[in-house]
Amino acid sequence: MGELGIGLIGTGFMGRAHALAFRNVSAAFQLPFTLRLAALADADPLRAQACASAWGFARAHAQWQHLIDDPQVDLIAITTPNHLHYPMAMAALAAGKPVYCEKPLAVSLEQASALHAAAQAAGVVTRVGYNYQHNPIIERARELIQSGRLGQIISFQGEFSEDFMADPASPWSWRCEAAHAGGALADLGSHLLGMARYLLGDIEAVCADLQTVHRQRPATSGSQEQRAIMVDDVTHALLRFSSGARGTFSSSWLKHGYKNHLSFEISGTQGTLSFDQERLNELRLCQMGQPGFQRLLAGPDLPGYAAFSPAPGHQLGYNELKTLEVHELIMALAGQGQLGTDFAQALEVERLATAIRLAAREQRWVNLSEVQGQFAAG
Amino acid sequence: MGELGIGLIGTGFMGRAHALAFRNVSAAFQLPFTLRLAALADADPLRAQACASAWGFARAHAQWQHLIDDPQVDLIAITTPNHLHYPMAMAALAAGKPVYCEKPLAVSLEQASALHAAAQAAGVVTRVGYNYQHNPIIERARELIQSGRLGQIISFQGEFSEDFMADPASPWSWRCEAAHAGGALADLGSHLLGMARYLLGDIEAVCADLQTVHRQRPATSGSQEQRAIMVDDVTHALLRFSSGARGTFSSSWLKHGYKNHLSFEISGTQGTLSFDQERLNELRLCQMGQPGFQRLLAGPDLPGYAAFSPAPGHQLGYNELKTLEVHELIMALAGQGQLGTDFAQALEVERLATAIRLAAREQRWVNLSEVQGQFAAG
Amino acid sequence: MGELGIGLIGTGFMGRAHALAFRNVSAAFQLPFTLRLAALADADPLRAQACASAWGFARAHAQWQHLIDDPQVDLIAITTPNHLHYPMAMAALAAGKPVYCEKPLAVSLEQASALHAAAQAAGVVTRVGYNYQHNPIIERARELIQSGRLGQIISFQGEFSEDFMADPASPWSWRCEAAHAGGALADLGSHLLGMARYLLGDIEAVCADLQTVHRQRPATSGSQEQRAIMVDDVTHALLRFSSGARGTFSSSWLKHGYKNHLSFEISGTQGTLSFDQERLNELRLCQMGQPGFQRLLAGPDLPGYAAFSPAPGHQLGYNELKTLEVHELIMALAGQGQLGTDFAQALEVERLATAIRLAAREQRWVNLSEVQGQFAAG
Amino acid sequence: MGELGIGLIGTGFMGRAHALAFRNVSAAFQLPFTLRLAALADADPLRAQACASAWGFARAHAQWQHLIDDPQVDLIAITTPNHLHYPMAMAALAAGKPVYCEKPLAVSLEQASALHAAAQAAGVVTRVGYNYQHNPIIERARELIQSGRLGQIISFQGEFSEDFMADPASPWSWRCEAAHAGGALADLGSHLLGMARYLLGDIEAVCADLQTVHRQRPATSGSQEQRAIMVDDVTHALLRFSSGARGTFSSSWLKHGYKNHLSFEISGTQGTLSFDQERLNELRLCQMGQPGFQRLLAGPDLPGYAAFSPAPGHQLGYNELKTLEVHELIMALAGQGQLGTDFAQALEVERLATAIRLAAREQRWVNLSEVQGQFAAG
Repeated sequence: MGELGIGLIGTGFMGRAHALAFRNVSAAFQLPFTLRLAALADADPLRAQACASAWGFARAHAQWQHLIDDPQVDLIAITTPNHLHYPMAMAALAAGKPVYCEKPLAVSLEQASALHAAAQAAGVVTRVGYNYQHNPIIERARELIQSGRLGQIISFQGEFSEDFMADPASPWSWRCEAAHAGGALADLGSHLLGMARYLLGDIEAVCADLQTVHRQRPATSGSQEQRAIMVDDVTHALLRFSSGARGTFSSSWLKHGYKNHLSFEISGTQGTLSFDQERLNELRLCQMGQPGFQRLLAGPDLPGYAAFSPAPGHQLGYNELKTLEVHELIMALAGQGQLGTDFAQALEVERLATAIRLAAREQRWVNLSEVQGQFAAG
Repeated sequence: MGELGIGLIGTGFMGRAHALAFRNVSAAFQLPFTLRLAALADADPLRAQACASAWGFARAHAQWQHLIDDPQVDLIAITTPNHLHYPMAMAALAAGKPVYCEKPLAVSLEQASALHAAAQAAGVVTRVGYNYQHNPIIERARELIQSGRLGQIISFQGEFSEDFMADPASPWSWRCEAAHAGGALADLGSHLLGMARYLLGDIEAVCADLQTVHRQRPATSGSQEQRAIMVDDVTHALLRFSSGARGTFSSSWLKHGYKNHLSFEISGTQGTLSFDQERLNELRLCQMGQPGFQRLLAGPDLPGYAAFSPAPGHQLGYNELKTLEVHELIMALAGQGQLGTDFAQALEVERLATAIRLAAREQRWVNLSEVQGQFAAG
Repeated sequence: MGELGIGLIGTGFMGRAHALAFRNVSAAFQLPFTLRLAALADADPLRAQACASAWGFARAHAQWQHLIDDPQVDLIAITTPNHLHYPMAMAALAAGKPVYCEKPLAVSLEQASALHAAAQAAGVVTRVGYNYQHNPIIERARELIQSGRLGQIISFQGEFSEDFMADPASPWSWRCEAAHAGGALADLGSHLLGMARYLLGDIEAVCADLQTVHRQRPATSGSQEQRAIMVDDVTHALLRFSSGARGTFSSSWLKHGYKNHLSFEISGTQGTLSFDQERLNELRLCQMGQPGFQRLLAGPDLPGYAAFSPAPGHQLGYNELKTLEVHELIMALAGQGQLGTDFAQALEVERLATAIRLAAREQRWVNLSEVQGQFAAG
Repeated sequence: MGELGIGLIGTGFMGRAHALAFRNVSAAFQLPFTLRLAALADADPLRAQACASAWGFARAHAQWQHLIDDPQVDLIAITTPNHLHYPMAMAALAAGKPVYCEKPLAVSLEQASALHAAAQAAGVVTRVGYNYQHNPIIERARELIQSGRLGQIISFQGEFSEDFMADPASPWSWRCEAAHAGGALADLGSHLLGMARYLLGDIEAVCADLQTVHRQRPATSGSQEQRAIMVDDVTHALLRFSSGARGTFSSSWLKHGYKNHLSFEISGTQGTLSFDQERLNELRLCQMGQPGFQRLLAGPDLPGYAAFSPAPGHQLGYNELKTLEVHELIMALAGQGQLGTDFAQALEVERLATAIRLAAREQRWVNLSEVQGQFAAG
């Protein structure tokens, strides 16, 4: 059994989530490789060293380029701010190394297209961190859909709402800049677009409305200085799937009461299924002939759950979804994973978001083919 | 105190609901009139007589025209199949009598416009049966919105889904005929459109998609003979309110598990509020600064609730919403009601539905002003 | 078809609920009698007359004895304060008239026993107002249990909690007097004890703990004067059913957040079923082999529901449960009702409450047979 | 900073949960020690070696005594079948090493007392795995209670139900043997007893009923051979807390639909709070003056949550509760932890369960002081 040297760039929220996932995956699964936590990079050398030590990485780098070139590193994991995804992933691909990049893949459709082309040329495994899709109960939902147990899919209603920007006094951040892939559509909505595609396949046309409700925010917390905000707070859209299904889409970071409300309901001729990330271990399902909805709690009949607990109802957490994503990636490196979001899939998510912005700007239906060769992020 | 002679046409589901409401309203409220159950009409004279007797109406008519002309009758309540609303309401208005008509007002925008014009000419009180709006907890919702306690309203997400046509073996009925105001948009969706307008005011533009999933159905239950279906099973739309709020709209009668899922969520800069008719005595509310949603159960602090029970949590039922609608109507007849849906409001609901059909047919945004003078029901 | 003259004593909350029910029942059901609202009694003659007029009763009495003796009155309905139930019901039985008395039957076990004996001697139909049992979805629960679809019943967990006395500033009322059948056990708990018996049959032994948390309350709202409180605020008990099932019981009027939380969960070898009066149109059910609980919404497959609506999910309200109780009573008068709580059943509920008080006082298990011949209310 | 060598005995469900927790804790927290995964023991030497390798332990032992004596091992974690807890923990204490033992501490009250005495003599830190108590939202509940924000605590209603033994064809296992601390009370109920004590303090008296519903089960899955079952399937009890609070307790492993329903509701004079382990990231809370219950979702305002995620609503899982338990243990080893269940607390839980069995057997209230010096497990 070969070894796999992990190189991780970034030590923030997602950096630690990756570290936890790489540490956990060996205990949760039998793997085709022995994992080595080879190197950790952070621009702050002291932080790089401290985190490497706490998290068990053998070596620390202050220059991310050194990590990419490090011969001990076989896989590059990127968890830095969005605008750095492009140069880092490009460099990794140029070095011929597989890339595991946090979402979004890039800050423009042009960058995303270039990354996809580079990944194809390099011929390496790529993955983008749409980890909500790796929830075992989402696997169950997908299986219910693909097996036909919900019949022909008629409609999708999806919403991803949070409230972390609901207070107008919440200050400006990079999330408020289009150039950093800001806005609720990019930040939250793209997870839902990826989920819709994962479950129901291609979307061929969209119509949409965007709102910027708070047109300025304090430059920093409590500051008098205001910065103008150009990105969307709220987006609503109609979706037309290639399969014939139709649906609605909403994203908002202004919705009081919601903390992680990535939710959807799928209606088919044989049943209805719904999900809410705020209760990530549950599905609600009603099949034809049943009198009402029933609650399914995740349990060890789902392989991804069984990896963590032999007892139903014990609940997986967010970090375990990350571990499941890492597992799929590692299996893909061994030629066996097939359900992760690679650069090609991630590019389609970016294209969808671009189409939604275009449809909102021009107040008309936009066919996805219109943004096929178009690179401006809108 | 004057008397008010009630004349009721129709003895089906809604006929009985009206009869119950007219019987209840005197016990629940102090009224400005003494109600007399003057006359009941049904085309079947035996049924007319039997129901009149059971429900306490003084007289039975087999000809609805006779009921309208009956000098004992001061108010005409119409609960017949949709295509009869127009001639009956027209005759009542011609006789100078107030009209209380079940929804929809008519089967075409042209008819609805003509009824509105006739009502204006007659100068009598009119009401259309959008009784879900008379729920005391909906009054609470409206008050929360109008008082500004939710801040500026940002978004509306509404859905009215049931499953009574979900089985493809569910046979054709008049509900499947456009000429009888059939289809899920007219049958269910119009309640939601009325509710959206009631809570948030005018809608100025829509974009939409309609689906007819089951294109034929058995002519009768179990029959081999199939009839073609032209009306919508499912509709999705984007809504633009004149206030600046935006939203999504869905209606379906194919959604397994739902029985009366008239639901909405309204997001404002100061709070979020949601409602589901399947739990009609509850609101879910999160105001800025609160950590999560709280459940409000209807209680006697709401006047419409107090009319039926002095104790909170005792639950109102559907028929009591009808009684509350009748109460508002009677107060309007005494010059004091102002919250009911009159023919002018009901015409706007029909216009909205027409705009949604047009937007779906032409796959574009439709401004409501475009259907101002347009009468074809689409 | 004969006539049935209704005589109603009392014009408070329950008086009006009875009036509404007697008015509704003819419109909701085909009855074996024609109902006449014959007479209404209230000690205040003006109020008696005003309510009689508003509610449609032919005659008003200021002396309840006159109503009982009124030859137009065939059935005596009693909705006065608890301590008046005994003399009124005794007088009605002495007059050979059937009695429909609000709960509790009486303010002591001795009174209740005497009433039961008198009813047996009179040989007339009697009913006590445990109307929660007449919920159609409770009928469904009972049918699920009695058909064996839940298997052998193992356990019952019941709780009836409200919060209307939770504020220590809530003043003394007759509900705080043992001599008026006060305390949360009598006021709320007896409903739950009746329900437990209705669903699962006789209870043979109990063990219990009572708490009086607020030992004094203001004499009237806002008053400085305090009155000592002797009745229970909270009661917990263990129940042993004759069937072999075991369970827990709780009642409280101090539990913040609950308005009408009459709730239970029943576990059988083949399934689990739960109910909460705050959502009275729903059951939650999990049968062996199902992955989780499903929600059943009341619909017209339940006859008591169909009497009010042909459409599922439209929701019954509290007052319609009262109408269903009145219907059962009227059918019993025609020899066909059999599910109502008569004086014999109501006596058993009082005996149970007495046993619970005794078990708490003596801190030991009490067999129901111990309070067979015992009349002190404890 | 010193090092801490971890020695783990057992490689089953809980063995792996411990391994995951020891691996995670360094990445989630800044620790006062550097953790070394020193040794893993399993009676099967091949499995010991394979798991040590997969989970990152430096050394494997086939004899647990060797692990205890291993000079590299500073802390002994015990996750073996219940009857082995006693000899292993005794040996560890004899070696002067701190012990972290899975629940239950032992299979009899006598053993538990002896272990407690030995721990006191050894003067080392001890912990027993009641990890549900380490949920950050349980910390929040405890803080709400201890700060007085719920007022004086009046009542506790707790239930721990699952359905994994609900099928009578579920075979015999060691969980069905009293000698292995079997039965639903020991297996499930003890978690709830520990939780009740953790939140509300000492319990001074109990009354109870036990049921063995399925008196025999197949010896193995599908076998014709039946084995007699002596342990409880279901237990109900009344609890009297030293604080004056009263409550009910239920445990069952026969309740269809529940997978991990460790649940409780606590009522105080100022508020009500409820929790269900099947939704472990949520509390339901109603404080005096609020109209209804609100849902609190765990977020980074809770330190134990912040250790894993900076974003609210992202959900912790079962294994992270274990990591939090390990963190508390490590802090205790550095003299800073104080909220874990040590052998003294665990002994009290065993005493409570013993008192419940005694109360059920003798059908009377049992004061906890009665089982002070009593060692038979009942």
